[in-house]
Amino acid sequence: MNDSTTPPPLDADHPLASGRTAASPLVRAANGQRSERLPVWFMRQAGRSLPEYRAAREGIAMLDSCLRPELAAEITLQPVRRHDVDAAVFFSDIVVPLKLIGEDVDIVPGRGPVFANPVRTPAEARQFAARVRARAEDPTLFAPIDEAVRRTVAELGETPLIGFAGAPFTVAAYVVEGGPSKDHLRTRTLMLAEPDAWLELADAIAQLSGAFLEAQVRAGASVVQLFDSWAGSLSVERYRASVKPSSALALARVHALRTPTGDGVRTIHFGVGTAELLRDMHDAGADVQGVDDRIPLDEASRRLGGTVPLQGNIDPAVLGAGREVREAHVRDVVRRGFDAPAHILNLGHGVPPEADPQVLTDLVTFAHTLRGDVPPER
Amino acid sequence: MNDSTTPPPLDADHPLASGRTAASPLVRAANGQRSERLPVWFMRQAGRSLPEYRAAREGIAMLDSCLRPELAAEITLQPVRRHDVDAAVFFSDIVVPLKLIGEDVDIVPGRGPVFANPVRTPAEARQFAARVRARAEDPTLFAPIDEAVRRTVAELGETPLIGFAGAPFTVAAYVVEGGPSKDHLRTRTLMLAEPDAWLELADAIAQLSGAFLEAQVRAGASVVQLFDSWAGSLSVERYRASVKPSSALALARVHALRTPTGDGVRTIHFGVGTAELLRDMHDAGADVQGVDDRIPLDEASRRLGGTVPLQGNIDPAVLGAGREVREAHVRDVVRRGFDAPAHILNLGHGVPPEADPQVLTDLVTFAHTLRGDVPPER
Repeated sequence: MNDSTTPPPLDADHPLASGRTAASPLVRAANGQRSERLPVWFMRQAGRSLPEYRAAREGIAMLDSCLRPELAAEITLQPVRRHDVDAAVFFSDIVVPLKLIGEDVDIVPGRGPVFANPVRTPAEARQFAARVRARAEDPTLFAPIDEAVRRTVAELGETPLIGFAGAPFTVAAYVVEGGPSKDHLRTRTLMLAEPDAWLELADAIAQLSGAFLEAQVRAGASVVQLFDSWAGSLSVERYRASVKPSSALALARVHALRTPTGDGVRTIHFGVGTAELLRDMHDAGADVQGVDDRIPLDEASRRLGGTVPLQGNIDPAVLGAGREVREAHVRDVVRRGFDAPAHILNLGHGVPPEADPQVLTDLVTFAHTLRGDVPPER
Repeated sequence: MNDSTTPPPLDADHPLASGRTAASPLVRAANGQRSERLPVWFMRQAGRSLPEYRAAREGIAMLDSCLRPELAAEITLQPVRRHDVDAAVFFSDIVVPLKLIGEDVDIVPGRGPVFANPVRTPAEARQFAARVRARAEDPTLFAPIDEAVRRTVAELGETPLIGFAGAPFTVAAYVVEGGPSKDHLRTRTLMLAEPDAWLELADAIAQLSGAFLEAQVRAGASVVQLFDSWAGSLSVERYRASVKPSSALALARVHALRTPTGDGVRTIHFGVGTAELLRDMHDAGADVQGVDDRIPLDEASRRLGGTVPLQGNIDPAVLGAGREVREAHVRDVVRRGFDAPAHILNLGHGVPPEADPQVLTDLVTFAHTLRGDVPPER
């Protein structure tokens, strides 16, 4: 991927190329354009909060479900049918690419991704990076992903599919810690103590996450989102020195893709607690900057110079409040979003497992009573 | 506590009153004055990282150990003996006051504080608040704390003891969630959906945390720190509306105290991920603003107008790095700290359980080769 050859264009029947999704409110917003319909979707909309998801997954381990194309497509489509959201987000997990290259990783219910052989020493980091590089460009690697995405977009019609991947730091934090951790201390120590081994590890993961994104786009995703869930645990200085270059590599892989008529694919970049990092995360190559619920969208837009489309940032805590509180909050979020050139409405964090699906549906219905091109009244 | 009567002065033999600790580098720094010796201590210095702590605690449950005065004093003194730090911090836990008023709370190893009866509904919040208010001013409530602190300061000589308590939001997050949680969603929903019940709950906890702080000061603590560990999960707007007033109540309780000669007791206020909240946390009544490792001290000082003494902010991730990386980092932290009127050197977070105690000792030794009144060279 690091040579200068231009990758082949997307297929002529790609949803973006054929124009099927290019005029959708979500893709337009990612291109900085407002539409009458306000585009809305929810991070983690496909998954735990839906009874039909729990039924479909019954008895099937998380990573297995990601690798069964028919099931992954079905789970991806469920929230689109139920909530009338303006995009599907591909049902998968940030560690799926590592599972596909043969790493010993599992997703333990109630805990999260667990690696049997955590990478701790500089030598282990280099060996891990070499294994990743050796496999990342295998053209058959993402076959189950390719099939799942093709099945999904065949059903989606004009609704765009958002592909996604984990950013190198967030994925590396699981690889180094061996599982979820509170402050990713071993990972941050590796960065500081062994910067060269760290960068080798992060760049290899970037290559793999980039390949995962490219596979989803080639199969039919119209937009991608890079999740750097843990980036907020870093200072700006550390983010710039140790994380941003690798994230930029992964995003560049998507920016290199073109439809046969030369149109590009837009990227969204998101992390939690990243109010201090917004500008750097955008600079890493995000067309749309995701914003969590800890900073208002007007302030986020100000920090980005008022020129960057935003995604976010309904506080998931309102999902448990009454309708009046919820709708006043959504109206406020949408109003502040008008400080940016365009806005994709979303939560400021993933859907909580205990969220009431009906509340999410009602929220979409309410959002669609507002307009994407005219600010709501106060 | 909310009436306007002035509380009685501290005892004449209080360490601050007798002048024993008033001239210490730490107390001077809390008063905005620099000393030749750079004051340094570590959050969570008393505890899990020390073998003598694990030996002393063997077979004794965490909350039991907090309530055995001789043991709590011994654990408080251990890191002072070992590391030559410039302050002791009282060994206790933010839920100790709730245990003392009879709430069913336990600290589960590897998990944290767990409440048997989480407070979920507005009615439960009001009942809980009423129970807290009814017991918080019982003069015998803090007898084991009083004895532990008196034993501790009798041994400490000119080294000040820092008392501490949990801020209302962080304590309430455990009470409402029933235990540790990732994003305190139920607590944040209660704030939004039931603001009156929330404020009643938060104010009652503030009263209890304030009484806990006052008990420690009366028994001999020279400075206090209010921990709002989870404050960083809130937007500035939410912090201001729902959290800051209660934290200010707890801190005001300490500011009302005076030595017989009229000197006050200084307060430190700390939370993780609070770069966006520093000014509001200071405004809540902090003499010293604690800063985590995600924002450099010079930038923190700039946000505070350059007038506020700071505490922090060595990245705990350097504890696992080599000596050269560690010392360069500490030197940089100290240099940036000179942008503030005074600086108490500390970690930007608690001591990790797996920290090597010798590294901490070496770090104190190195810090004491620097000066508190002259910036280190670049």
